[in-house]
Amino acid sequence: MDTSFFHQMLSDSQVLTVPWSIDYFSVVVGVLTGALFACDRKLDIIGTVVLGLLTGYGGGIIRDVLMQDHGVYFTSHPDLIVICIAICAFVFYFRGLFRHLDATVFFADALSVGLFALAGASKAYACEQGVVLSIILGAITAVGGGAVRDICVGETPGIFKQSNFYAVAGLGGSLAFVALAYAGAPLPIAGVACVFAVVFLRYWSVYYDWKTRSEADLTPHVARGVGKVKRVVSGVFLHGGDATAAQKRSLRRVLWRRRDDE
Amino acid sequence: MDTSFFHQMLSDSQVLTVPWSIDYFSVVVGVLTGALFACDRKLDIIGTVVLGLLTGYGGGIIRDVLMQDHGVYFTSHPDLIVICIAICAFVFYFRGLFRHLDATVFFADALSVGLFALAGASKAYACEQGVVLSIILGAITAVGGGAVRDICVGETPGIFKQSNFYAVAGLGGSLAFVALAYAGAPLPIAGVACVFAVVFLRYWSVYYDWKTRSEADLTPHVARGVGKVKRVVSGVFLHGGDATAAQKRSLRRVLWRRRDDE
Amino acid sequence: MDTSFFHQMLSDSQVLTVPWSIDYFSVVVGVLTGALFACDRKLDIIGTVVLGLLTGYGGGIIRDVLMQDHGVYFTSHPDLIVICIAICAFVFYFRGLFRHLDATVFFADALSVGLFALAGASKAYACEQGVVLSIILGAITAVGGGAVRDICVGETPGIFKQSNFYAVAGLGGSLAFVALAYAGAPLPIAGVACVFAVVFLRYWSVYYDWKTRSEADLTPHVARGVGKVKRVVSGVFLHGGDATAAQKRSLRRVLWRRRDDE
Repeated sequence: MDTSFFHQMLSDSQVLTVPWSIDYFSVVVGVLTGALFACDRKLDIIGTVVLGLLTGYGGGIIRDVLMQDHGVYFTSHPDLIVICIAICAFVFYFRGLFRHLDATVFFADALSVGLFALAGASKAYACEQGVVLSIILGAITAVGGGAVRDICVGETPGIFKQSNFYAVAGLGGSLAFVALAYAGAPLPIAGVACVFAVVFLRYWSVYYDWKTRSEADLTPHVARGVGKVKRVVSGVFLHGGDATAAQKRSLRRVLWRRRDDE
Repeated sequence: MDTSFFHQMLSDSQVLTVPWSIDYFSVVVGVLTGALFACDRKLDIIGTVVLGLLTGYGGGIIRDVLMQDHGVYFTSHPDLIVICIAICAFVFYFRGLFRHLDATVFFADALSVGLFALAGASKAYACEQGVVLSIILGAITAVGGGAVRDICVGETPGIFKQSNFYAVAGLGGSLAFVALAYAGAPLPIAGVACVFAVVFLRYWSVYYDWKTRSEADLTPHVARGVGKVKRVVSGVFLHGGDATAAQKRSLRRVLWRRRDDE
Repeated sequence: MDTSFFHQMLSDSQVLTVPWSIDYFSVVVGVLTGALFACDRKLDIIGTVVLGLLTGYGGGIIRDVLMQDHGVYFTSHPDLIVICIAICAFVFYFRGLFRHLDATVFFADALSVGLFALAGASKAYACEQGVVLSIILGAITAVGGGAVRDICVGETPGIFKQSNFYAVAGLGGSLAFVALAYAGAPLPIAGVACVFAVVFLRYWSVYYDWKTRSEADLTPHVARGVGKVKRVVSGVFLHGGDATAAQKRSLRRVLWRRRDDE
């Protein structure tokens, strides 16, 4: 690994130069998970390569297309593309090797999402896109590739459905980076915080089985709350004029927190 | 609302400055319909926010990506993104409130499609993209967001299938704006015509149940017509040489419109 | 056809100016196949036009978006768009005419894929994107439109699944063009080779029913090979110390190719 990374960690430069080896690692892991997904769906070698590349590069492509004119990462590293195609072909022909590596792939994937969130948020930050866009572009870079992959085989992306934290983890890491960066922390520290936030959120959500909810209607709760407030208010302003003795007592109980029970 | 809008209506400036409040309104309504769609499909909070943003911004993003180098609307208004995310979260947690607002949502949606068509066509017009592209980019901005939303959950977009006018309405409004603008009408008037065209086309198509057709094969009709022409032509040029007396009479009847029946 | 094309064939200019009639032909055929696909899926007129345009222009749009700042082909030829919309409407209303033209459509489609591969690879080559990206952008331009079309109706793209060569043909043609161009051959000759490669690969793959494979796990084969090597190596380095007499004989047989059977 480049020693200038650690050197920079001690300076307070405001453009984070992530060593190329880290970027390469996250793309390669993304490509690997995409290729395994394609093998699982019984696609052929073309589908495996395309889904692999889409998963690895998709998030970055969306970020770069939305930012316009700051260059597309995909087109600027042809050597990485060749490596990724070779990896896809390897996965396609030696899928058997990955059968017992689920835990390793899971951890590498979490790390790669963290590094993607960092790459997205730091590029947006360096291009001065502001707080909101930096967070969003970081999250898009982190999980956009997986969403594009799912859409390409006609499925609703997993991150849109009830599931363990994945997009939430990407968003959390992106948020951590941007918050620390705008608070004036040295960027390398913000970057490490980002990766740690993603990996731990992802890991904990699977360990404790935290899930996002697919249904959540707070209307009845709030309606009850509003109804109670309405009764109280009307009670106060109408001086309880049309309230029965029982209602008045209940009203007093609510207003003074059951002081008359004492 | 900005009074400069009405002021501009009386001048003949050739760049239409739509007040930001109108742009905001159309994006917010688009986001609202997208979030309701996501709740209907039982997506989680991430899916609701993403589908909401895609529906509200999708058409504009496609337009801006196709035009290159004129800026992406999505990235230039971070405050609007925050509002939209808040709306998506509100819809997600208080979906019960929208259960009886179908008619309101329908009308707001029609209005929002009209405003999107205006935004798309007027930006393309201001960037001097020509008649054809202005119309197409207007229509894409109007209904592209909804199409992207449908594709993202693995469905064929509703506008591609037999349905009440929706894309047709967007296209009609876009056409109205571009036709009036190139005919030299003041842009504010063209803009109002565009919105009215969309809202009325959409409303009438639902009221009278006008639908696009999913099957339409005119070949048999035309084949009959061509056969008739062929018989007539061969009759004339062959001087009826190989025609029977009955055929000649029928031929004469066709050519002179049954004059010999008189 | 422009005579300057043949003139250029004899010069060694390094930017290939494909006559506009050839570009138009390939887009029109792409649009035609897209519209027929839409009719087959019972879409309405809007869906037919959109899928037609996406199939004809999709690959080029992806290429241009990835390259940034070299212009989008779609927006630079409004007259072609009008022609394409007219063709889509014609296909929609006279689909009966195309019922017996399967062979013609197949051949025109193969030719169009070849011309697309040429258009993609030559534009990338002219913009100096390097060997790898020129090949990939050529292949994307060739078959990207069809993939986008399939995704838009919620299907896994046909080119991702076990099928006759289609993406492989596009890739082969793109490879032929780039290899010849970087080897210093005159571009028109490279272009002709590209188109021929695609058409013949496509034709042969259907004629001989060559297909890509949806499953291919070489792990067991390699595991056997590795096991054999391991046994041999351990035999040699351990001097057969813990091998039985039968194993030693088998080892000798492997190492000296059954010389002791003589």
